Amino acid sequence: MTTGYRHFYRGRRVMVTGGLGFIGSNLARQLVELGADVLLVDSLLPDYGGNRFNIAPFEQQVRVDTTDVRNREAMNTLVQHQDVIFNLAGQVSHIDSMRDPYADLDINCLSHLTLLEACRHHNPSVKVVYAGTRQIYGRPDSLPVNESHLVRPTDVNGINKAAGEQYHLVYNNVFGIRACSLRLTNVFGPRQLIRHNRQGFIGWFIRLALEGRTIQIYGDGAQLRDFVHVDDAADAFLRAGADDRCNGEVYNVGGTAPISHRDLTSMLLDAAGSGRVEYIEWPQEKKAIDIGSFFADSSKFTSATGWSPRIALRDGLAATLGFYREHFAHYVDAATAQEQA
Amino acid sequence: MTTGYRHFYRGRRVMVTGGLGFIGSNLARQLVELGADVLLVDSLLPDYGGNRFNIAPFEQQVRVDTTDVRNREAMNTLVQHQDVIFNLAGQVSHIDSMRDPYADLDINCLSHLTLLEACRHHNPSVKVVYAGTRQIYGRPDSLPVNESHLVRPTDVNGINKAAGEQYHLVYNNVFGIRACSLRLTNVFGPRQLIRHNRQGFIGWFIRLALEGRTIQIYGDGAQLRDFVHVDDAADAFLRAGADDRCNGEVYNVGGTAPISHRDLTSMLLDAAGSGRVEYIEWPQEKKAIDIGSFFADSSKFTSATGWSPRIALRDGLAATLGFYREHFAHYVDAATAQEQA
Repeated sequence: MTTGYRHFYRGRRVMVTGGLGFIGSNLARQLVELGADVLLVDSLLPDYGGNRFNIAPFEQQVRVDTTDVRNREAMNTLVQHQDVIFNLAGQVSHIDSMRDPYADLDINCLSHLTLLEACRHHNPSVKVVYAGTRQIYGRPDSLPVNESHLVRPTDVNGINKAAGEQYHLVYNNVFGIRACSLRLTNVFGPRQLIRHNRQGFIGWFIRLALEGRTIQIYGDGAQLRDFVHVDDAADAFLRAGADDRCNGEVYNVGGTAPISHRDLTSMLLDAAGSGRVEYIEWPQEKKAIDIGSFFADSSKFTSATGWSPRIALRDGLAATLGFYREHFAHYVDAATAQEQA
Repeated sequence: MTTGYRHFYRGRRVMVTGGLGFIGSNLARQLVELGADVLLVDSLLPDYGGNRFNIAPFEQQVRVDTTDVRNREAMNTLVQHQDVIFNLAGQVSHIDSMRDPYADLDINCLSHLTLLEACRHHNPSVKVVYAGTRQIYGRPDSLPVNESHLVRPTDVNGINKAAGEQYHLVYNNVFGIRACSLRLTNVFGPRQLIRHNRQGFIGWFIRLALEGRTIQIYGDGAQLRDFVHVDDAADAFLRAGADDRCNGEVYNVGGTAPISHRDLTSMLLDAAGSGRVEYIEWPQEKKAIDIGSFFADSSKFTSATGWSPRIALRDGLAATLGFYREHFAHYVDAATAQEQA
């Protein structure tokens, strides 16, 4: 039954770490619709993506706790009686991780150990789904990339995200905390951070298009990427959380057909009706860490759960542009706009 | 020239983290013989393997600093003017890592970031060789295991050791800190910790044999392992440290021909002339995390540097037994002997 996993959440106690962030808040919205008892944990660290406006339409239907996941005492209490934990808290900026690797280690390793230790000692029967990332693969040896590809991160953030994933698998295998990881490809959609350009390029490109500014593409823009809409990503979490066949596994959650930076940008500018594109030489330091083309093979996850991405890129972009047009001020404040312009 | 790499160290400034430990002290002894200017950094954390007696024969020819590698200010000073850093500091107990994952994260991730950040900002031209471990592979898909095998650690220690390795590669690739990693298989020889049984089984088996006690083997003892003598392991570090072709690479450093637990134990008891063996049922919790047989393919490192293990297992065990017979009191104090007996 394809919708059984959605009924699973009725009346369930579900905690989402990073619940005020991009994916967390979109997942929370679906959980509320499905009748779950939702607790969102998010410390709203500046620049990380948490945003109270993300849950404005349903904030009366969830509980919010702004404790930091690294707070051991708090986590020991919060995990109790939860049925499912979607563990989405994290630092996602590659750039920030190279500027301050200590902070990245703290957020992307220590916080997951804290959560898992809390589960081990206070709620060992909970199910945990971790938000992994395709970034841990680094520069692919072949395409599409499946889960048997070597993990070879190109930055500190990727290393720590890989370690965070592996903690979940070890706690599954050794301590019986049911856990799995979804290695997400580039996710896009409403409620993504667009205040600065240090969290991946798709949100930033969307903002530049909306503001009528220039999108810079390095080289000829021929590199391929796959993109998944956040509603499809949230659906992947719901399926994994409801399915014990996923325990102890890692899954790619990839996007619709791969597309080049060049074609993506054309599609975006077309949908926005504003902005422009400029092709520039690769900056030396960017070229050094470029991974070339990447797109994921999600067939393992499709076989396990029936999931596949439903939302076409063009449709998703149009809807996303509409969302930000309507709520721009909640995502880009005037001071920041000037500073980054 | 096969010995060129040894001449390389004459007059070089070389720092060894974990320098009072098992591999660090044996490496230090060779460096002193080669005429290097040696600084040993070791905080002598209890139970971790650091032991001042390890350097007794040459302590006047080295400098020792007992700062912790996590001390940022101290490391910023210590790395300056070093030509080569052998980065061997670490927590190596699988068991301890599962009891206190926070401490393992601190020692095996934070300390390496601290060292690498110090190099990045205060000595970017240094060469760093990291002591990796075969443990990060987990249960092998096929044998022998080469470097293209997936990294799939089975405990928190393996996860953090893998992250530590990857930091070195990223700092090599992004910041130009020349670095490589040697993934060591089971290392044995003089100066290994034998005070407790939480740091791998070979040292502990040697102690039991010397004390005439019973070595317990789970199941039929048919699992294979490879063993490398610490002098051969130290030689691998010397070669990697002197060779810029190794930069950015990971290498297996395996042992001589694989041998079963059963045959190893027979050989050990034979060489010791004391002790006995008992075969017992697998404890359930041990069976759950058993990785079966493991032995490494070191041909990548042999091709790059000419290294291969020289010391036969039987000869190495005999010499090791002789070392501990002579210096037993420096490795097992009376109180501990009673406690563990």
